[in-house]
Amino acid sequence: MSDFPSGYLATGWNSGIKDTTLDFGVIYSEVPAAAAGIFTRNNFPGKPVIVGREHIAGGVLQAIVVNSKNSNVATGDAGLQLARDMCRLTAESLGIKTTHVLPSSTGVIGRLPPIEKIHAACREAKTRLKTADFHTFADAIRTTDKTVKLASRTLKSGVKLTIAAKGAGMIEPNMATMLVYAVTDAKISSSDLRHLLLCVANRSFNRITVDSDTSTSDTFIIMANGVSNTAIQFPETARMELEQNPQFDSGASLSSLDADSNEFYRTFLDLSQQLSRTIVSDGEGATKTLEVRITEARSKEQALKIARSIANSPLIKTAIHGGDPNWGRIIMAVGKVFDEPVPFENLKIYFGDVLLEMSGTDQLPVLQAYLKKSEIVLRISLGLGTFEERIWGCDLSREYISINADYTT
Amino acid sequence: MSDFPSGYLATGWNSGIKDTTLDFGVIYSEVPAAAAGIFTRNNFPGKPVIVGREHIAGGVLQAIVVNSKNSNVATGDAGLQLARDMCRLTAESLGIKTTHVLPSSTGVIGRLPPIEKIHAACREAKTRLKTADFHTFADAIRTTDKTVKLASRTLKSGVKLTIAAKGAGMIEPNMATMLVYAVTDAKISSSDLRHLLLCVANRSFNRITVDSDTSTSDTFIIMANGVSNTAIQFPETARMELEQNPQFDSGASLSSLDADSNEFYRTFLDLSQQLSRTIVSDGEGATKTLEVRITEARSKEQALKIARSIANSPLIKTAIHGGDPNWGRIIMAVGKVFDEPVPFENLKIYFGDVLLEMSGTDQLPVLQAYLKKSEIVLRISLGLGTFEERIWGCDLSREYISINADYTT
Repeated sequence: MSDFPSGYLATGWNSGIKDTTLDFGVIYSEVPAAAAGIFTRNNFPGKPVIVGREHIAGGVLQAIVVNSKNSNVATGDAGLQLARDMCRLTAESLGIKTTHVLPSSTGVIGRLPPIEKIHAACREAKTRLKTADFHTFADAIRTTDKTVKLASRTLKSGVKLTIAAKGAGMIEPNMATMLVYAVTDAKISSSDLRHLLLCVANRSFNRITVDSDTSTSDTFIIMANGVSNTAIQFPETARMELEQNPQFDSGASLSSLDADSNEFYRTFLDLSQQLSRTIVSDGEGATKTLEVRITEARSKEQALKIARSIANSPLIKTAIHGGDPNWGRIIMAVGKVFDEPVPFENLKIYFGDVLLEMSGTDQLPVLQAYLKKSEIVLRISLGLGTFEERIWGCDLSREYISINADYTT
Repeated sequence: MSDFPSGYLATGWNSGIKDTTLDFGVIYSEVPAAAAGIFTRNNFPGKPVIVGREHIAGGVLQAIVVNSKNSNVATGDAGLQLARDMCRLTAESLGIKTTHVLPSSTGVIGRLPPIEKIHAACREAKTRLKTADFHTFADAIRTTDKTVKLASRTLKSGVKLTIAAKGAGMIEPNMATMLVYAVTDAKISSSDLRHLLLCVANRSFNRITVDSDTSTSDTFIIMANGVSNTAIQFPETARMELEQNPQFDSGASLSSLDADSNEFYRTFLDLSQQLSRTIVSDGEGATKTLEVRITEARSKEQALKIARSIANSPLIKTAIHGGDPNWGRIIMAVGKVFDEPVPFENLKIYFGDVLLEMSGTDQLPVLQAYLKKSEIVLRISLGLGTFEERIWGCDLSREYISINADYTT
């Protein structure tokens, strides 16, 4: 029995966009699937994001078509036409509706992808799709990613879930140069899928940062084709909470999920967090991952602002890289969130489980030993309330400079 | 005749705080001087900033006392006492009022400076001060600065102005690990000085960035002892405008300055911009400076937000470092200012004087040649209004990582 959800085919191949590496991928569901998506908040979204938003509005998808090695951003009318062509030609090849296809493009910005090659690849979709080869799909959507990012699990209910992702640079919550496609054979309404997606994104892909830069192409999609016949439902209360504040649900109402839905939510979250960590650990030039946890905040917003200030501080990222417990920089980064003052005497800073003593140097060897690890957790308790947030980031190394000073153009 | 303003003494020496390099400096005015200051907006200001704010509130200073190699931040009650001691002991040595002394400390955060050594140095103030040796003072306040930052000019009116500054890392407007002390023998009220200072800061020291990190110790002070007897006045209209919006005065009312005052303002601005550029060109690891000009914005706020987004983007800073005209990253950085949308079709991007054509690759050699320069100007016209802002920054190199991964602790 396949590890992958029933009723899907997937593959990737080389279409000659830039070189001979894999650069084109398609996912296809044998039946129309309920679907939901969230996209970059960048004010100049890529053309595929514009088209994708239109198509996902109907709540149904049957295919996803992606090219790497060249994004489709700042490419004018010709680029928009190409994004529409990708959907139309892929739909024609597969015998499905154009509006049931979601397109993505990732790679260098500002250059129109080679139209003829993209057209030809879309026309091959049907003949290329033989099996559920999600691994090759995940391989084909990479740009500077060093690793293939794919996670799958079979639930007790028999439902299966697979997530393929890419992302390594230009990564900042809301979202990243990040493409994430989740497919499942569970039966879920598109409305429930949307809330599930937001809820999971707020605890995973929307909480990572590599360099504070926000891509123009970010896309996080879930498709549920219902082939397994197991129904998953999101409670009405959770839906209402998310609609009030889509960035900061408390998750309180999730406790009312039924067993199957709870298992599905937990699994979706778990795989998403796992892939989020993989993205930051594969962050351009990263040698260590950094988890920043802000606890006892007076609001989710406060916790997140301060977490981001820490995780994005070049001085903290370089100190982590150098294994230097330079906690003065943490104080600085908490303090530079001008609109969220915190009483200094409330602050507690933990390196892993070790509470920092702000006087003396006795702790230095302990902290230095801790910073030799490859997964660093900094916890800062603000002593102001009960809210928490977590951000995953990485260190800043010479290699990040090399990658980004020499890439393209 | 000295190049420096009349009625001041200054010097620097080694007090043994960390090593044998210069680490202690004093400026002294023979008569009490009108004074104004602005300080870091970081929520955890250093202890000297706390004391400095108290002392400057009276509008009069007679001495500035600074130690480098160890800041006085996150040092508890002992640190606050030390900052007060610095003022008291320096005042006793010089026979002036404690509240007429402004203290600063810069260097590593979170460690109490050596109390006895600081005390001893303050007690030596009078015997150390022999001449107006501003160069040695400017030398003594450095931390990771490679160059001494000092600028002086004599005006037609005979008034003299000298500015000593330091700053190289943890630099972000509002303000930086930046200490700036301006002294003049002009006669200016402390209220006028304050407005002059804000006006200049908004066009110089508050418009630079090295790494988006905001120090806890930033201080920008001006003293005017009136020894030259030339009176400088700031018009009432300019004062009102600045009070309404201290971050974003338009400068319109400056046109009503009388000749001497106008010359003084222009000189103060010119020297401040010159030193601001020196700070970014001495930015940690910097090999090139970057001036980001946003024009045709609908407001000063919009222009500044977008300018900062560009000047702080690691992907743009690395592209500048690599000499790569990867303008897609500029599009990204304009677009990631979520709350300031700009119509894409309005955008005009200039590399120096060259208007970017967003299609084709014909311009590539021209742009690549431009980016070989050491002073890069990016101008982005938003086509929305008449407001402008400028930010000075620098590239991001492997050397920044080396400096900050290995510094302290």
